[in-house]
Amino acid sequence: MDTIQSLGYNVYFNDSLTELVNFIQQGKYSKVFILSDDQTSNCCLPAVTERLDGVTPYDLIEISSGEANKTIDFCIGVWKMLIDFGADRHSLLINVGGGVVTDLGGFVASTFKRGFDFVNVPTTLLSQVDASVGGKTGVDLDSIKNIIGTFTQPKAVFVHPGFLETLPERQVRSGLAEMLKHGLIDDEAYWDELKNSDLSVPNPELVFKSVVIKNKIVLDDPLEKGRRKCLNFGHTIGHAVETFSLDNDGDHLTHGEAIAIGMICEGWLSVQKAGLKQEELEEIISVLTRVYPKYHLDDSCYTVLNSLMKKDKKNEGDNINCTLISKIGACAINQICTEDELCESLKFYASLNF
Amino acid sequence: MDTIQSLGYNVYFNDSLTELVNFIQQGKYSKVFILSDDQTSNCCLPAVTERLDGVTPYDLIEISSGEANKTIDFCIGVWKMLIDFGADRHSLLINVGGGVVTDLGGFVASTFKRGFDFVNVPTTLLSQVDASVGGKTGVDLDSIKNIIGTFTQPKAVFVHPGFLETLPERQVRSGLAEMLKHGLIDDEAYWDELKNSDLSVPNPELVFKSVVIKNKIVLDDPLEKGRRKCLNFGHTIGHAVETFSLDNDGDHLTHGEAIAIGMICEGWLSVQKAGLKQEELEEIISVLTRVYPKYHLDDSCYTVLNSLMKKDKKNEGDNINCTLISKIGACAINQICTEDELCESLKFYASLNF
Repeated sequence: MDTIQSLGYNVYFNDSLTELVNFIQQGKYSKVFILSDDQTSNCCLPAVTERLDGVTPYDLIEISSGEANKTIDFCIGVWKMLIDFGADRHSLLINVGGGVVTDLGGFVASTFKRGFDFVNVPTTLLSQVDASVGGKTGVDLDSIKNIIGTFTQPKAVFVHPGFLETLPERQVRSGLAEMLKHGLIDDEAYWDELKNSDLSVPNPELVFKSVVIKNKIVLDDPLEKGRRKCLNFGHTIGHAVETFSLDNDGDHLTHGEAIAIGMICEGWLSVQKAGLKQEELEEIISVLTRVYPKYHLDDSCYTVLNSLMKKDKKNEGDNINCTLISKIGACAINQICTEDELCESLKFYASLNF
Repeated sequence: MDTIQSLGYNVYFNDSLTELVNFIQQGKYSKVFILSDDQTSNCCLPAVTERLDGVTPYDLIEISSGEANKTIDFCIGVWKMLIDFGADRHSLLINVGGGVVTDLGGFVASTFKRGFDFVNVPTTLLSQVDASVGGKTGVDLDSIKNIIGTFTQPKAVFVHPGFLETLPERQVRSGLAEMLKHGLIDDEAYWDELKNSDLSVPNPELVFKSVVIKNKIVLDDPLEKGRRKCLNFGHTIGHAVETFSLDNDGDHLTHGEAIAIGMICEGWLSVQKAGLKQEELEEIISVLTRVYPKYHLDDSCYTVLNSLMKKDKKNEGDNINCTLISKIGACAINQICTEDELCESLKFYASLNF
């Protein structure tokens, strides 16, 4: 494992918290802020702050954890704290947490005083494999995921494998879905390696390989004009299911659990429309159902899910635009799917017994 | 007068509304939206919409006019309407209005679905000379001007001189302050031309010259790392006075009226600290007091104004950072001013009789 060079910044894997200290010492920032959430503050933040004590003074800003709080209202709260703490254009924001913290913190930093520097210290498997590279920042509005945001790169990302050791099982499953996706859309050998691994324990080597795959795709197409859309496999249906669950379930699905459902549905659509073989779909289903429990979907959900998909930010005009796969390891972007087709794919998922 | 090339886009002066129609016809946008405010809807919008009828369908989004409404709350309202109207990444937003509409509309477009195209049709003298070039978008938060925003360029700007013919006198004065500033910071000949003109009537030739000056500065330093800071002359004190007036006066100062006060104060500071000659300051005062009425400032204001200046987004660390002028037509950036010096300059303004 080595340092990965992304869009004008480095993603550090080797002794990354020491690299964070080096970065701050070289940066000559006027003020340093740490953004975190209440969950991260307990489990992961001390590993960061104990390295910073004596290196730099900092102010800590804490938000409530959970996707439901990734909103403009929380941004306003953070912006006001930055004003009160005297943040300026030469300050640094360190986002320590999962995807909610890195997405929201990146948006806050990219828009406060028209932008100041931020770095990410992702603490969950999902944020390490997915939010480390790509430069997407954003928050949700009216239950629509990431509808408000910018493309802004962090100045560096520090991936610390130690954070993975204490993750609860569902958090591991959540990140794993994006890793499996990286294999399905781009790298059959990586998919095979994952499918033959013990998927219940996060493996830093496999995290590194996932970031290498995503980084290659992002460097090719930073603003998602074309090829980068392959990263959306499983996400048209997955985002809708995730939002539906957030709105309706007390104990709602994680991002990865929803994307796993989306990959089964969009895998089925890939057989109908993009050339995926039936036996490949069966292999995908067998791996995913080994990891992810069944989620109950019935007739009452489909209308809501369809109306959510129509608001997906990837659509063009009135069409629902999906990314499918033509085989394991290769994808097919810009696949227009009708409401009926999407509904059929959800019914296919509902018909599976596992 | 000709077309000006700015940062990757054109500012059209010749028959600009025809150019707007050409732009839309060539753009192949999925949907077109017009953002305007209630004042603009009456006076200026019909000139635009009558050109668009038959060219493209569009949806109209109207906000309340006035700086007090340049807030995140209004952004949320516009974002929600864009969601409801089905805006996507291939849509176009046309901002028709003064600086509030172009600043807020630019911010909304630069952050909705991580950015879609927008163009500006500035309808006030201020927005024609100041907001046409520069790529600054933004809204106010907690009475701090433009504290939340991005650097994002419009795809084109259309300056229509016809809009200037019906402007109320105070709107003319508001824009004139920025034109006078362009002369003071960069072009003594232009200052002389302005000072010998009838300043009560907007002159499209002089508008064009102002945009040429600002564009030259912005092209040199798009992200305000150095030289572009010269555009902030008069704005450290001016913004604080503007905010103070917005918060305290029923009939509050316009932006330009506040900047005129700021230029007198910062002109006085320029004599103390940056080499401006006393007779140049007197000339500046004589021109500004010919146009702008006296604003009452007394001891009770100074503490409030100082605390506003400390929150100015141009500051670095705890220093208040001003742009001064070393002579008429040349500026001196990064001039650290103490609270006492700023207070003295306000008292100097208060002591003037006009």
